[in-house]
Amino acid sequence: MPGIKILNDPIYGFIMVPKGLILDLVDHPWFQRLRRIKQLGLGCYIYPGAVHSRFHHALGVFHLATQAIEILRQKSHPVTREEAEAVTIAALLHDVGHGPFSHVLEHSLVPLEHEKLTLWIMEALNEDLKGRLDLAIEIFKGNYHKSFLCKLVASQLDLDRMDYLNRDSFYSGVVEGTIGYHRLLTMMDVEEGKLVFEEKAGLSIENYLGARRLMYWQVYMHKTSVSAENMLQSLLARCKQLQLNRFASPALEYFIALDRHLDWKSQTEYLLNQFQKIDDTDVEMFLKCCQYADDPMVSFLAKGLIQREFFKVEVLDKAIDEESLLKRKHMCIEQLGWHVDEANDLVQLNKIDFNAYEKGDQEIWIRTKKNEIVPASEILSLQHLSNVESRYYLCYPKATGLGKLS
Amino acid sequence: MPGIKILNDPIYGFIMVPKGLILDLVDHPWFQRLRRIKQLGLGCYIYPGAVHSRFHHALGVFHLATQAIEILRQKSHPVTREEAEAVTIAALLHDVGHGPFSHVLEHSLVPLEHEKLTLWIMEALNEDLKGRLDLAIEIFKGNYHKSFLCKLVASQLDLDRMDYLNRDSFYSGVVEGTIGYHRLLTMMDVEEGKLVFEEKAGLSIENYLGARRLMYWQVYMHKTSVSAENMLQSLLARCKQLQLNRFASPALEYFIALDRHLDWKSQTEYLLNQFQKIDDTDVEMFLKCCQYADDPMVSFLAKGLIQREFFKVEVLDKAIDEESLLKRKHMCIEQLGWHVDEANDLVQLNKIDFNAYEKGDQEIWIRTKKNEIVPASEILSLQHLSNVESRYYLCYPKATGLGKLS
Amino acid sequence: MPGIKILNDPIYGFIMVPKGLILDLVDHPWFQRLRRIKQLGLGCYIYPGAVHSRFHHALGVFHLATQAIEILRQKSHPVTREEAEAVTIAALLHDVGHGPFSHVLEHSLVPLEHEKLTLWIMEALNEDLKGRLDLAIEIFKGNYHKSFLCKLVASQLDLDRMDYLNRDSFYSGVVEGTIGYHRLLTMMDVEEGKLVFEEKAGLSIENYLGARRLMYWQVYMHKTSVSAENMLQSLLARCKQLQLNRFASPALEYFIALDRHLDWKSQTEYLLNQFQKIDDTDVEMFLKCCQYADDPMVSFLAKGLIQREFFKVEVLDKAIDEESLLKRKHMCIEQLGWHVDEANDLVQLNKIDFNAYEKGDQEIWIRTKKNEIVPASEILSLQHLSNVESRYYLCYPKATGLGKLS
Amino acid sequence: MPGIKILNDPIYGFIMVPKGLILDLVDHPWFQRLRRIKQLGLGCYIYPGAVHSRFHHALGVFHLATQAIEILRQKSHPVTREEAEAVTIAALLHDVGHGPFSHVLEHSLVPLEHEKLTLWIMEALNEDLKGRLDLAIEIFKGNYHKSFLCKLVASQLDLDRMDYLNRDSFYSGVVEGTIGYHRLLTMMDVEEGKLVFEEKAGLSIENYLGARRLMYWQVYMHKTSVSAENMLQSLLARCKQLQLNRFASPALEYFIALDRHLDWKSQTEYLLNQFQKIDDTDVEMFLKCCQYADDPMVSFLAKGLIQREFFKVEVLDKAIDEESLLKRKHMCIEQLGWHVDEANDLVQLNKIDFNAYEKGDQEIWIRTKKNEIVPASEILSLQHLSNVESRYYLCYPKATGLGKLS
Repeated sequence: MPGIKILNDPIYGFIMVPKGLILDLVDHPWFQRLRRIKQLGLGCYIYPGAVHSRFHHALGVFHLATQAIEILRQKSHPVTREEAEAVTIAALLHDVGHGPFSHVLEHSLVPLEHEKLTLWIMEALNEDLKGRLDLAIEIFKGNYHKSFLCKLVASQLDLDRMDYLNRDSFYSGVVEGTIGYHRLLTMMDVEEGKLVFEEKAGLSIENYLGARRLMYWQVYMHKTSVSAENMLQSLLARCKQLQLNRFASPALEYFIALDRHLDWKSQTEYLLNQFQKIDDTDVEMFLKCCQYADDPMVSFLAKGLIQREFFKVEVLDKAIDEESLLKRKHMCIEQLGWHVDEANDLVQLNKIDFNAYEKGDQEIWIRTKKNEIVPASEILSLQHLSNVESRYYLCYPKATGLGKLS
Repeated sequence: MPGIKILNDPIYGFIMVPKGLILDLVDHPWFQRLRRIKQLGLGCYIYPGAVHSRFHHALGVFHLATQAIEILRQKSHPVTREEAEAVTIAALLHDVGHGPFSHVLEHSLVPLEHEKLTLWIMEALNEDLKGRLDLAIEIFKGNYHKSFLCKLVASQLDLDRMDYLNRDSFYSGVVEGTIGYHRLLTMMDVEEGKLVFEEKAGLSIENYLGARRLMYWQVYMHKTSVSAENMLQSLLARCKQLQLNRFASPALEYFIALDRHLDWKSQTEYLLNQFQKIDDTDVEMFLKCCQYADDPMVSFLAKGLIQREFFKVEVLDKAIDEESLLKRKHMCIEQLGWHVDEANDLVQLNKIDFNAYEKGDQEIWIRTKKNEIVPASEILSLQHLSNVESRYYLCYPKATGLGKLS
Repeated sequence: MPGIKILNDPIYGFIMVPKGLILDLVDHPWFQRLRRIKQLGLGCYIYPGAVHSRFHHALGVFHLATQAIEILRQKSHPVTREEAEAVTIAALLHDVGHGPFSHVLEHSLVPLEHEKLTLWIMEALNEDLKGRLDLAIEIFKGNYHKSFLCKLVASQLDLDRMDYLNRDSFYSGVVEGTIGYHRLLTMMDVEEGKLVFEEKAGLSIENYLGARRLMYWQVYMHKTSVSAENMLQSLLARCKQLQLNRFASPALEYFIALDRHLDWKSQTEYLLNQFQKIDDTDVEMFLKCCQYADDPMVSFLAKGLIQREFFKVEVLDKAIDEESLLKRKHMCIEQLGWHVDEANDLVQLNKIDFNAYEKGDQEIWIRTKKNEIVPASEILSLQHLSNVESRYYLCYPKATGLGKLS
Repeated sequence: MPGIKILNDPIYGFIMVPKGLILDLVDHPWFQRLRRIKQLGLGCYIYPGAVHSRFHHALGVFHLATQAIEILRQKSHPVTREEAEAVTIAALLHDVGHGPFSHVLEHSLVPLEHEKLTLWIMEALNEDLKGRLDLAIEIFKGNYHKSFLCKLVASQLDLDRMDYLNRDSFYSGVVEGTIGYHRLLTMMDVEEGKLVFEEKAGLSIENYLGARRLMYWQVYMHKTSVSAENMLQSLLARCKQLQLNRFASPALEYFIALDRHLDWKSQTEYLLNQFQKIDDTDVEMFLKCCQYADDPMVSFLAKGLIQREFFKVEVLDKAIDEESLLKRKHMCIEQLGWHVDEANDLVQLNKIDFNAYEKGDQEIWIRTKKNEIVPASEILSLQHLSNVESRYYLCYPKATGLGKLS
C-alpha cells in the first residue's frame, strides 16, 4: 500500500505503519532494540511459546491506538491529525525504556524505573526531531488537557494492558487470559472530557480485570518464574558486589560498575548511550559465560539458570516466622556448604502484592444507561478485585539439584 | 499428573512429557540449548511474531509422534513400548544438531550438516545412557526394519514438517500455511510395512504440499530474509578470513578459527563440547559488538544487521548475465567506495531451487479405495509441484542506506 | 479408521465415535432429532452465528467424557470398559429430552422438565436394547456408587457446562466466554471417591465460573433474547387457550391440545412418540403460518417474531411497583388498542435469578497442596459468585413497531 | 455506537451496520428470511458444525465490501459515498434470491436461477425505495462503468467467495479451506479501471484457488451431501409429478404446483410474494411429514433423509457404461421391489464438473513488479487449476438400509 508499511501480526492480522515520522521511529535503533527484549523476561522457561518481544507488543499497542482514535472520531469526538499522531506515537514508545528482561532487572542492574528512562529517551528523540514529539510527550506524561487521550495510553483500562493480555495469553497458550478487546474498544466514549465506557461493557470489563488477575498469578508471578528472577537478581547483585565483569560486554560492564548513588542528571546522555546498547543478549551471553566463573556462587547461579535448575519455591498465604526462615538458611548452610551471608542471599522470602482494581482517583468511568458518569466500582461487581492480595514466595536452593550441578 | 510433566503449547494445548528417560532428555543441557535457537533464524525481522524456538518445535514433533503412535495402534499395528519410546525420542532429538540461527550458518560457521551433528550428539548421549538410545538412533538413521516408524520421523510427509508448518504459520501470522494435520494423522496407516495415507486424505495432502511451497517462498525464502542471511554469512566469512574474533565468546572464537579441512573424526568430542556452547546468543552478541569493529566491512555489515538496514534484493526468474552483474559490482565500487574484491562479496546472485514434491524413491504412498498401494504422484494432482522451481536473488548494498550508516 | 466414525468439529478438531452401541445411538432417530434443535433457542436473533445444534453439543460432551476417562485412567483410577462406555453414553444422551428451542418452551408447550423426558427416553431406548443402558442410566440419575463418574455428567463443573461454554462462545463470537477446559480436564482427579480438582486449577476454576456468569447475562439472558422468548411463550399460551392449531403439524397439535393436568404415567409411551416428532421446525413453520392467523394477538406476535420486531425490554435492578406496571399496561391498551386481559399478557415483568456458584452440598472439591480435600468456596475467591443475582426484565410492545406491523 | 448497529461475528469480530438505508435493508423481511436458509444446504449432515445461515454470509460479504472500499480509497482511488453504499448494498443483497437449501432445489422446486430472483427482488425493493437501489442494481448486474466496483461483487476473486471460504471452513472445521483474505484485500488495487492484485499476492491467490477447489470436492460436493441432495430432488420431483402436497405449507404448495413452462413475466409479483414465504423450514417440515405419506417412494425418501439413511455413493473418475448402470437398476428392482421407472429415478449417475480457474475473458488481473497488467494465468502457477475436472457420482439405495426403513 502506498505510504504504508504492513507488518504481519498473528493476533490482529496486519498492522499498518504509516510512512514518515512513525515508520522512522519504528526503524530507529532505539525502537529496533526492543526486538531483543523478551516481553515476559524469563517467563518462557515456564511457557515455552512466550518468547515474543516487546517490539511486537509496542506495535500492538500502536495498532490499538489507531483503532481507538477511529472509533472516537466515529462517535463525533474531534481528534486532530496532530493529536492522533501523538497518541499513536506515545503508544508506540511507551515501553522504549525497558531494559534487559523487561521488569526483572529494573531495580537491580539499571537502578531506574523504566518509565523514567522512556521519558528521557523520548526527550532525546524529540531533540533530534526538533520538537515533533512535543505533543506525544505531553500525552505520555499525562499532562495533555484532553485527558481522555492520555488515558488511552495509561490507565486501569488502557491499550497497553489490552495488548499485553491479548499477546501474552496468545503466545503462552493460557487461553483463560482472553479478553474481549474488540468489544471494549467499541464501547469507549468521551464524556465531560473523560474516557468512559458504556454500561453495556460492564461484563466485559469485569472479565478483563479477572483475566488480568489470572495472568498475574498464573503467568507473570508464576512461582518458577519468580524463582528464576530471584536467581538472576542475586547473580547480578553478587557481580556488582565483586565487580565481576570479565565476560560482560562493554555496555553491561558499565551497568555492573554503575554506582546506585550517582547523580543521574549530570550524565544522562552517557547513561542513555550505554543503555541503548544493552538488551537480553548481553545478559544471556554473560550468564552463559558465568557458568565457568571462579566465584562459586556466581557459577552456581549461572548454571542453574542456563540449565534450568531453578530454586525450589513455596507459595504461602502468609509470611513464615523468622525462626522457620532461619532453619531453611541453616539447612542451606549445612547441606550445600554455603556461608552464612551467602545463605542469606540464596534463601529469600518475597512478599508480592496485587490489586486487580484500584478504587479512588484513577477509576474506570462508566456511562450508565441513564447517562450518568460513575466510577466502575459503584455499579460493577469489583469488590473481590479491589482488595490487595498478598502472597509470599519462599525460594531456596534444592539440595538434589545442587548435587548435580557441582 | 503423576509421571507426566505438562507444557503449554498455544498450538496443541498441552504437551505431555512422561517423566523418566524422555523428561531427562528434555531437561538435558543439549536439549535446553535449543531454547536459544530461533526456528526461523533471521525470519523474525520480516515476521515479528516468528521468534519461536527450535526447542518448542522439537517438543511439537514429539507430541505429534505420540499421537501418531496412538493412531497406528488403534488401527491394530503393533508398536512395542520400546519402539514407541524410540520414535518419540527420535522426533524429540531430530534437530538437536542445529547451530546458531538454524540453517543460516550451517555451511559457513559450522562446516557440517546439522543432521550429522544431530547424530553425533545422539551417539554421545547414548554412551552416557548406556545404550538406551540405540533404537532411537536406528530410527533416526532410517535403518530400522519397520520402515514406517522411520518415515514418521523423516519423509516427504513427516511429523517434522507437519509441526513446522503448523508452528511457523501460527507464529508468523501467515494463515495460508495452515494444514489439516489432524486429518493427515488420522488417515495414516501401515500397509506392506510402508507408511501409507488413505486416498480420502488426497486433497489434504495436496493442500499440505501447497502450503509448504507457499511457506517456502513467502516465509523461509522471503527476499528480505535471504538478504539478511547473506549479510550475516558474508560477515562471518570475513571474520574467518581476518581471524577477527576480539568480541567473540570462547566457543564462537573456536568456530571462527576452525579449519574447514579439519579431520573431524579425530576431534569430534572437543568439537561437540564447543558446539554445545554456542547458540543465537553468541552470534547476536558478536554482531552487536562488531558494529564497532575496525574493519569497515565488518562494521558495515554488523550495523546493517542490527539496525535493520538490509541489502536490496531483486528476485528474478532467470539468472542475469555476467555483464549486468559486473555493472552492479562497479556501481558498488563507485558509489560506496569498496574495493573490487569486497564488492565481489557484497553483490551476490543466489540461485534457489525448490521442489515441493519429489517423485521417485521417496514418494508418499497412498492406499486407494480399491486397496492398492500407489505413489501419490500417480493419483493426486502433483504435477505442478514436482518440478524444480528456481529463483534468482540478486542482493546488493543500497547506496542510500549506506549513507545513513557511515 | 476401522471401528471408528470421525466427525469434524471446529472446536475439538475431530470427534471419534466408536462403531457399535455408541454409533447406533448417534444414528438413532431420537438422537438425530437433536440436529433440528438449536442449542440457544432464539439466541441466534442476537448472535447470528449461534445457530449450532444440540446434536453437536451432545457430541462435544461425549468427546470430553472420552478424554476425562482417559485422564483419570492415566492417574491410576480404574474405570472399567463398561463404566467408560456408560459415562460416555450418559454424556451423549444427557440432553435428548430437550424440546423445540431448548429451554424456551420447556414449561409451556411441553409441560415437563427436560431431565425427566431425557430419563424416559433413555429408559425406552434401554428396553429396546435389552438393558444395555442400565449403567448409563444409573450414572445419569446420579445413583452409581462411584460418584465421581456421575459428577462428570452433572455437577457444578461438569463436562456439559465445559462444552456449552466452549461451544456457545465459539459460535456466538463472545470470546470472553473462553474457558481453559483443557487445563480443567487435566487437573481432575479422584480422592476418597470424590471428583476433585488440584489446587493448581484454582484460577482456572474461578475463570470458568466467571465465564459462565458472563455468558449467562450476556448471551443466555440477553434482553432481546428474553423478549423474543416471552413473545413465543405468549403466542403458544394463547394458542393453547384458543385451541388454535390450524397450521400446526400433527405432533405440535397434540402438544397444543395437551392438558397440563394429565396423568402422565398412563400415557408416557404415546407422549414420547409425539415428542420424538417435534423440534424447532414444527414451531418455526407454525410461527410463519400464524402471521396470517385470524386472532389479532396471535398474528401480532408471530409477525413480530418472524420479522424480528421484538418487544422493548428494560433491565432493572429491582422490581418496579404495581402502579408503574399498571401504567405500562394502560399505555398498551390506549396506544395499541389491546383489551385489558391481553395487555396483561403482553406487558410482563420477569424476575431472573442466577447463582454462579452454589455453596453447600454440591460444592466443587479441591485437593490442596497439602493433600486436603476442601470445598472450593473455602479456598478460592468465590464470594462474589455465591450470591444470587436478580434482575428484572420489563417487556412490552413498542408503539412504533406495532404501527409497522398492523 | 451512534448511527451504527453492531453484530457479533466469530470470524471478523464485529460487523458494523450503518443505520439508515442499509440497516433498513437488513431488517427487511426479504433479508431476514435468509436467517432460515442454511448456507450449505444439507452439508450439515456431514459437517455438523456447518449450520450457518446465508444471512450471516451476506453480512460477511457486506463487511468485506466495507473494508475493500476503505483500502481502495487509501490507495487514492476515489469512490463516492453513493458508490460505496451501492457496492455494500449489492454485496449484502447478492444472495437474496436463494431458495430453500440454497443451491439444492434451485432447478427443481423453484425453476429459476437464484441470480434472476435476486435481481427481481432488488428491483421490487427499489420500487418501494423510489430508486435508491438504482446504482446497487447496476453494480450487481455488472453494468456500472467503474468495472472494478462490479468485480468486487462478482468475479473469480470476489468478496462473496472470500467470505464463503472463510465462513464455510470456519463452521465445518475443514481448516484446509483457510485463505489469507486479509492479505488479498490489502493487495487489491485499480489500474486502467480494472480491479488488479499486486504480484506480491501471487502465492496467496494460488492458495485461495486451491482452497476453493479443496472445499468444492471435500465439502460442497462431498459424496454424502450429493447423495442427500439427489434424494431430496427425487422426492420433490415425485411430489410434483403426483401433485402430492397434503403436508405442504401454502407457499410450498404453490411451488409444487408450479408449471415449469409458465410465462414468468406475467406473474412475477405473485411468484415473488410466494417465494418470500418459503425457506428451509417449509421443506424440512414437509419432509418430516412425508415420512408418513401413502406413496411408498415418497415415504421411503423422506425417512431416509430425516433419519440420515442416505443412498450409497461411488465416486468415479469416468462414467460407467450403460450396462453396468442397468445392472444396478435391476438390483434395485429385485432387492428392493421398486418398479422399473422408479428404479430409474433412484439410481442416478451425476457428472460433476469443476473448473477452479477459468482462463479467458474473466481472468484475475495482476500488476507485476514491472507495473504491467497481465492475466493471472500468465504468471502464476495455475495450469493444474485451469482444466475442468470431472467426477461421476453413482448413487443408489442401500439394500440393507432399506430393510431397516420399511
